[in-house]
Amino acid sequence: MTHHHLSGPIHTVWDHALAPALTLRSGDSVTLSTLDASDGGVARRVANGELTAPPALDALIRADATPARSGPRGHPLTGPVFVEGAEPGDALRIEILDVQTADWGWTGCRPDGIGLLDAALAEEGLRPYTHFWDLRARTHAEFLPGIRVPLAPFPGVIGVALAERGPHLTAPPRQVGGNMDIRQLVSGSTLWLPVEVPGALLSAGDLHGAQGDGELSGTGIETAGQLHVRIHVERQAGVTTPEFVTPTHGGSSSRWHGTTGHHPDLMTAARTALRALLRRLEQRGLTLEQAYVLASVCVDLKISQVVDAPNYTVSAFLPLDVFEDGTWPGSAARSG
Amino acid sequence: MTHHHLSGPIHTVWDHALAPALTLRSGDSVTLSTLDASDGGVARRVANGELTAPPALDALIRADATPARSGPRGHPLTGPVFVEGAEPGDALRIEILDVQTADWGWTGCRPDGIGLLDAALAEEGLRPYTHFWDLRARTHAEFLPGIRVPLAPFPGVIGVALAERGPHLTAPPRQVGGNMDIRQLVSGSTLWLPVEVPGALLSAGDLHGAQGDGELSGTGIETAGQLHVRIHVERQAGVTTPEFVTPTHGGSSSRWHGTTGHHPDLMTAARTALRALLRRLEQRGLTLEQAYVLASVCVDLKISQVVDAPNYTVSAFLPLDVFEDGTWPGSAARSG
Repeated sequence: MTHHHLSGPIHTVWDHALAPALTLRSGDSVTLSTLDASDGGVARRVANGELTAPPALDALIRADATPARSGPRGHPLTGPVFVEGAEPGDALRIEILDVQTADWGWTGCRPDGIGLLDAALAEEGLRPYTHFWDLRARTHAEFLPGIRVPLAPFPGVIGVALAERGPHLTAPPRQVGGNMDIRQLVSGSTLWLPVEVPGALLSAGDLHGAQGDGELSGTGIETAGQLHVRIHVERQAGVTTPEFVTPTHGGSSSRWHGTTGHHPDLMTAARTALRALLRRLEQRGLTLEQAYVLASVCVDLKISQVVDAPNYTVSAFLPLDVFEDGTWPGSAARSG
Repeated sequence: MTHHHLSGPIHTVWDHALAPALTLRSGDSVTLSTLDASDGGVARRVANGELTAPPALDALIRADATPARSGPRGHPLTGPVFVEGAEPGDALRIEILDVQTADWGWTGCRPDGIGLLDAALAEEGLRPYTHFWDLRARTHAEFLPGIRVPLAPFPGVIGVALAERGPHLTAPPRQVGGNMDIRQLVSGSTLWLPVEVPGALLSAGDLHGAQGDGELSGTGIETAGQLHVRIHVERQAGVTTPEFVTPTHGGSSSRWHGTTGHHPDLMTAARTALRALLRRLEQRGLTLEQAYVLASVCVDLKISQVVDAPNYTVSAFLPLDVFEDGTWPGSAARSG
């Protein structure tokens, strides 16, 4: 069992025709150095003055500015890794041993992006906004004074190649994994992916320092970093869609504020729940953009029920422990 | 501040024309005695020999058999409670002080019901199945030897009357609450409901001893019991959809097994994730029906991401602590 290091090449599409960057055996481990989802673009925008970073992070961020890459745009992924003996019908069992972020990260929102409420909030005047996070404390990151988000880093993208001839976009996750944004894939978890091509061709990237279930504004705490995994081949494992075992689930807050939506369409129900939650954050003094970004990194969407036709219920959960002072509008005030 | 008791009448539709069963003031508390979702029907079926209960519960269940009710079918709800001073535009703030179940409960599945996979599993031979639970231990209930589900009782239905003239079915939850099946509404939580008619007209029922997020097979641990709440009026609270503060979220398991679905339609993604999870339970030796019922009371559906178009991700989480022996297929075996 050998330990490997891989810091490139970077590819920005899924394609089983890509040449393997590394070959390893079942039981080997590898540390992948990965880039942030913007492929250094946010750092470039700070370096060229388009975005302003906090003084404490400015030099760190400028140092990460890299020339723009030519070719197709997509998540910059490290790999692919060829796993000896992996054949279609097998599964890769991937132990996630460690996830280390860079010292800074970013979370953004925009009126014309991919976020759950972008279109609706654009009509209310949502502006482009980028928040920079100082990740050097490792356990928590401050959002605003009195508001701290717990860090729980994981790979936003981890997957294997499709049997179907490529190239394929990196944005949608598929039955072979990819951009799943499952925040429970933290250190200590194990992921199974179905193998569709010989060698499996594993790639990963797009680390998130934290994210709520749903990734509501379209970004988590986006960051570069290091992903340390051990990889096993399981023969004919009957894995047809990604599965995992995780030591974490609901997060560690002692109290939560939930909002709900009820609609025949789960996406519409999710939008209703999220809009109500953002309203509460605005009442606490956050701008709409701050509320949206904070929600994206710590609010969870849960499907409360899918059986009470014609309306199904989605609940959005805000961990109240992110507020250091413990106060929360609505928890006490205005009794009549 | 007065404490009240209310054990009837029972109504089976939402209708603001129903006469109040009790009038109380903001700050008062009330204990509602509630019936199970089948309105005693499951107990009747045991009493008349259509269903067989375990010997240890048989006498208990037969004692709860009641004559069938005439009139519209729906959840049997206790109320309505008129809250003095509550006006449209206000919110009711409802402190859930205590939830006590009866000594037994049931969970079922059928090939032609409302469950998430009923239609798909019917093609695989799913049969009607009713599991009876002994709830007398209060903290956990045994499903099969070696499989225990933690109890966390909550009201499946709690809501206020609609402004729109009724009657309205009890099945779908709405902006005024109702059959929300939000399992986090346990003792210690607080619920806000928007008031649409003078006096609000609160009713509740359909206690669940436990349920996973999603209520996958269409039933939780269905039970009668007692719901103890304190009710406050909040003036012009800006509550437009049910909201809550809860001390619980993800449950208490130390490890979880997750399965995933990725599809443009969240309901389809949920079905994919659930089917994969049931397969794992079947591999452990459960029948399809047992797997479906167990999932309904402890598996959670989470929306992992709603932004990676065109495919969105739903994950199903099984708490591995329900297995006393800690073993789980796939966690170890079959490495190549």
